[in-house]
Amino acid sequence: MNAEEIFRNIRRKKSFLCVGLDTDYKKIPKMLLHNEYPVFEFNKHIIDATQKYAVAYKPNLAFYEMLGAAGYMSLEMTVTYLRENYPDLFIIADAKRGDIGNTSHMYAHAFFKTLDFDAITLSPYMGHDSISPFLEIDGKWAVLLALTSNEGSKDFQRLQLEGGKQLFEEILTTSSEWGSVNNIMYVVGATRAEELSRIRKLIPEHFLLVPGVGTQGGSLKDVADRGMNDRCGLLVNASRSIIYADVTNKFEDVARLEASRLQGQMEEILQNHNLI
Amino acid sequence: MNAEEIFRNIRRKKSFLCVGLDTDYKKIPKMLLHNEYPVFEFNKHIIDATQKYAVAYKPNLAFYEMLGAAGYMSLEMTVTYLRENYPDLFIIADAKRGDIGNTSHMYAHAFFKTLDFDAITLSPYMGHDSISPFLEIDGKWAVLLALTSNEGSKDFQRLQLEGGKQLFEEILTTSSEWGSVNNIMYVVGATRAEELSRIRKLIPEHFLLVPGVGTQGGSLKDVADRGMNDRCGLLVNASRSIIYADVTNKFEDVARLEASRLQGQMEEILQNHNLI
Repeated sequence: MNAEEIFRNIRRKKSFLCVGLDTDYKKIPKMLLHNEYPVFEFNKHIIDATQKYAVAYKPNLAFYEMLGAAGYMSLEMTVTYLRENYPDLFIIADAKRGDIGNTSHMYAHAFFKTLDFDAITLSPYMGHDSISPFLEIDGKWAVLLALTSNEGSKDFQRLQLEGGKQLFEEILTTSSEWGSVNNIMYVVGATRAEELSRIRKLIPEHFLLVPGVGTQGGSLKDVADRGMNDRCGLLVNASRSIIYADVTNKFEDVARLEASRLQGQMEEILQNHNLI
Repeated sequence: MNAEEIFRNIRRKKSFLCVGLDTDYKKIPKMLLHNEYPVFEFNKHIIDATQKYAVAYKPNLAFYEMLGAAGYMSLEMTVTYLRENYPDLFIIADAKRGDIGNTSHMYAHAFFKTLDFDAITLSPYMGHDSISPFLEIDGKWAVLLALTSNEGSKDFQRLQLEGGKQLFEEILTTSSEWGSVNNIMYVVGATRAEELSRIRKLIPEHFLLVPGVGTQGGSLKDVADRGMNDRCGLLVNASRSIIYADVTNKFEDVARLEASRLQGQMEEILQNHNLI
């Protein structure tokens, strides 16, 4: 999928919502626990309930890895289910990988071939050859950490470099040369919306994956006002606020409602920006 | 395991060798491929052949993930095999993880509870709360990327900060406050031995995990002269140069020989530094 196709889906669905599948075994409604793969079963219900309102899904690898081989099976089944039933959805592995070249090649194989993800989140710390193997497969994306929404983002990401830039700014400008707007996105937290304006100046055309709207705080309107470009350029992620909106046998309906509520806000924003 | 126990094993085995289990399915000797889990079968033979000469093993997660659920099973069986047969060995997950706090908690569970690793490599880019969940379990270690051995390490790790430090130096001094010499180690590449001296001044007591001796270049003696402290303070990793030293039915013997050769060099170095 390239950037234009993502934008086409955004216009069609009037939504730039990414649903984070941070599926915590302990929070799954009890009646699903009798299944062999309850995490997959939960995901399937959440996907069916919310897919009309979303353009992307983002399984968070940690939640699957903690269950061992069974978790891996649930992940594989989730990706296959998305691919087979909703082929227009963009599927992001929230995996934060990044290693020396020959190892990154293996990770690219793991996420783009063994599993059929469209994109993977990566930590840029190890530099160019840790990222480039993910850019070599046509239609696949690297989503680089730039400025994250957690407390610890201040420890290193905002360090002041000689010459005046902050570290995350240097990472944006340097790494944007490694690929194109059709295979690199950036993770930009929504907790400080004013920084989005600066980021947009540095990389006017790239898509940004924005977590932190919802549970982590941050306003959708602020994010859009400062981060939107003429192809939308935003995927805004919500995880816990959708998938754990309810834990009774009504969980699907409540998740659908919450996704639809966010989609409604996004539709209004897209209209206000003359994108639909 | 604490730092003193690691040092005790180093003295007993006269070795600070870590064997990297970067087990590539395509490079496994043909006669092992009939097994249900050939990657595990290969690891088992390599471990049995080399364990006398090594104090640590380091499976590289990418090589297991690329095989999907079967790869995960091989990883799990490898860790269990090491734990049950050679309980004094230190087992490092080379996983380069790191995410916001609640996700890092899940990863800590995945690697320290679901799997029984002693340590995990982590990328420090997301700061304190991405690392601290790994420091909360007694006897378990975080191995933080500081200065890696790949070409891309120059892109960001060596950036000059305002005030004169390079980024990797700031990461060392800041992160060393988050834990102790008994639960934090650092990955320091061996490709520029002269930088080891600077790193040793900043963190005189921490263990360093040094890849890049062998296939990636870098001299063991240089590393030891500049990086060794009074508890050795080094784990030097060799992967491909040991495990793929031969691909015939003699692979175990040749791997044993190569591990024993490295151990011999390490014994001499430990003697020269009056540590044994």
